[in-house]
Amino acid sequence: MAKLLYRANDLREYVVRFFKKHGISDEDSKIIADILVAADLRGVDSHGVIRLDTYYGSRIRRGLIAVKPEIKVLNETATTLALDGGAGMGQVVGYYAMTRCIEKARESGISMVTVRNSNHYGIAGYYAMMALPYDMIGISFTNSQPLVAPTYGRTALLGTNPIAVAVPAGKQRPYVLDMATSIVPIGRITVYQKAGKEIPEGWGIDKDGQVTRDPNAVLKGGALMPLGGTDIMRGYKGYGLSLLVDIFSGVLSGAATGPEVGRPNTNLPADVGHFFAAVRIDAFRPLEEFKEHLDRYIQLLKDAPKAAGQERIYIHGEKEFELTEKYEREGVPLMEEVVRQLITTGQEIGVPFDLEVLGRVD
Amino acid sequence: MAKLLYRANDLREYVVRFFKKHGISDEDSKIIADILVAADLRGVDSHGVIRLDTYYGSRIRRGLIAVKPEIKVLNETATTLALDGGAGMGQVVGYYAMTRCIEKARESGISMVTVRNSNHYGIAGYYAMMALPYDMIGISFTNSQPLVAPTYGRTALLGTNPIAVAVPAGKQRPYVLDMATSIVPIGRITVYQKAGKEIPEGWGIDKDGQVTRDPNAVLKGGALMPLGGTDIMRGYKGYGLSLLVDIFSGVLSGAATGPEVGRPNTNLPADVGHFFAAVRIDAFRPLEEFKEHLDRYIQLLKDAPKAAGQERIYIHGEKEFELTEKYEREGVPLMEEVVRQLITTGQEIGVPFDLEVLGRVD
Repeated sequence: MAKLLYRANDLREYVVRFFKKHGISDEDSKIIADILVAADLRGVDSHGVIRLDTYYGSRIRRGLIAVKPEIKVLNETATTLALDGGAGMGQVVGYYAMTRCIEKARESGISMVTVRNSNHYGIAGYYAMMALPYDMIGISFTNSQPLVAPTYGRTALLGTNPIAVAVPAGKQRPYVLDMATSIVPIGRITVYQKAGKEIPEGWGIDKDGQVTRDPNAVLKGGALMPLGGTDIMRGYKGYGLSLLVDIFSGVLSGAATGPEVGRPNTNLPADVGHFFAAVRIDAFRPLEEFKEHLDRYIQLLKDAPKAAGQERIYIHGEKEFELTEKYEREGVPLMEEVVRQLITTGQEIGVPFDLEVLGRVD
Repeated sequence: MAKLLYRANDLREYVVRFFKKHGISDEDSKIIADILVAADLRGVDSHGVIRLDTYYGSRIRRGLIAVKPEIKVLNETATTLALDGGAGMGQVVGYYAMTRCIEKARESGISMVTVRNSNHYGIAGYYAMMALPYDMIGISFTNSQPLVAPTYGRTALLGTNPIAVAVPAGKQRPYVLDMATSIVPIGRITVYQKAGKEIPEGWGIDKDGQVTRDPNAVLKGGALMPLGGTDIMRGYKGYGLSLLVDIFSGVLSGAATGPEVGRPNTNLPADVGHFFAAVRIDAFRPLEEFKEHLDRYIQLLKDAPKAAGQERIYIHGEKEFELTEKYEREGVPLMEEVVRQLITTGQEIGVPFDLEVLGRVD
């Protein structure tokens, strides 16, 4: 599928114009733009500007997302904070929550923050990475619309509920785990469906709970499988991780949980829940010692013997950092289909998508 | 394989006698006994009395585990604690660390504790569950001997590094996730090898990094695969989780990491690292509200439609609680082979294993 290349900064500025047009402040629009475009830059294009209108704009216009949310403190201690996001944009609420979490960890060594009544917040990894400049470990979880079946079940009850953890290294790039607790996201199934291809066995089940290779069967009444897949491959661990993320993001915060988490395409508030944590490394060990140790460990993994036919062992986040550098230099690729959507929506709402195209890749 | 049934309490008392004979105090021996027998009671017999001599007794006699460890505080704040376990029994050090973690969380809402210079501590879930009577969420990680290859690698560099999280519910049983970050433990491969059976495709790789169904190829120069398995099934997520556990348990604590974590059958100190956390639920949300919410969520999962051919959807920890009740009532099953080992070792060290056999199961 052909892709067009755009300057990351042009995309950010467009996203800012888009949200300001919807009544969101300049400051908040910049936060949202940075998080959305970060997804495209990291190669997680499923969570980037492709969702500008479906997940965000259209829901704002239907009154389902508050453009000037009142973020309320439900509970606060020196180390903890429980927030109500006032049905605001997940990015605005999430950015605020993680900022407060880092502030608290600076004072107290560690901090945890929960959020209820929020919306889809984009890539979980962004918030975890906010801790890196402060030499802290950052953690971010969120629940999400039901797409995953529990082991031995046949209906989608759990979200793809991601786990994101960012850890600063010294000379090496940071370790950044940002993983859905399903095997693949639903968008991956759609890609196979559109291409008319069978999916690998184990990614999804049909409406009877049987593993299927037919993407249509997954999309129509079926469900994604949790990380691990079938019972024999210990899919109940992925199911357990998904439930864990929902316990921290949904139950501990008092947000919606499981099948009650709102789907973006319905006319109901989403009531998404998030969880954030920050950990000062120097509360446990001198920072330089920690970084030197992690550098050494990362190098050991990279230098280790490769499996036959493989050339490289990756550290989590490494591919994404390399893509970001490449896309910042050469332009961010957007699928032509996405560009057409952006142009159409832009015309409708009066924020024309007329950015300079830097090039084209196939 | 035939199994003999023993009273849980008889087993605990035997383990106490065993460790007292090795010079460990009565109090510490009781802690170790409770944790070891808890593994057998929960059906995790790979981590129970089967390891009494191989992982513990024989290492004490070789001077590799300190019987009266000096546990040192390396760093302490109101919320955090970094300990050196003084090469003590992992159970003794782990129990102490989690006890301190819970005390700190009672005061500060949340707490995290790291441990270096420890040994294998048995089942991770035990320490996480210590938080339950205090209406806290308990978390426990540990690193362990290298058995798992990173994605695209072919040598065992990472441990099966477990993640354990225990969350109190109200009327429902607690949620207790206690999972290795590999698909299966190495003992599972050995079971297939002894039975002369092929392993399911994806559990392990051979010395060239190729997926193999031959258990011998995994055991001789091969490695376990991380949760998820192959790249197409997103095994790099399991690899990421294993590395994450090692970052918290090993790098943050300053213990050994990766391939440097000691193997029980060598003549080197293990320098195992652990990580513990405790979270007061009422720091975020009224306890009764939380429990009622989690009860409802658990019931919803249990009541959900089952996959064709399945009768039950489980919550994590549920099977283990049911086994514990059964084994407390009917006796703890030990494989005849394990009983023979216990008898032999008992004779050698002068603590005869002469417990009453309650019955026999096939």
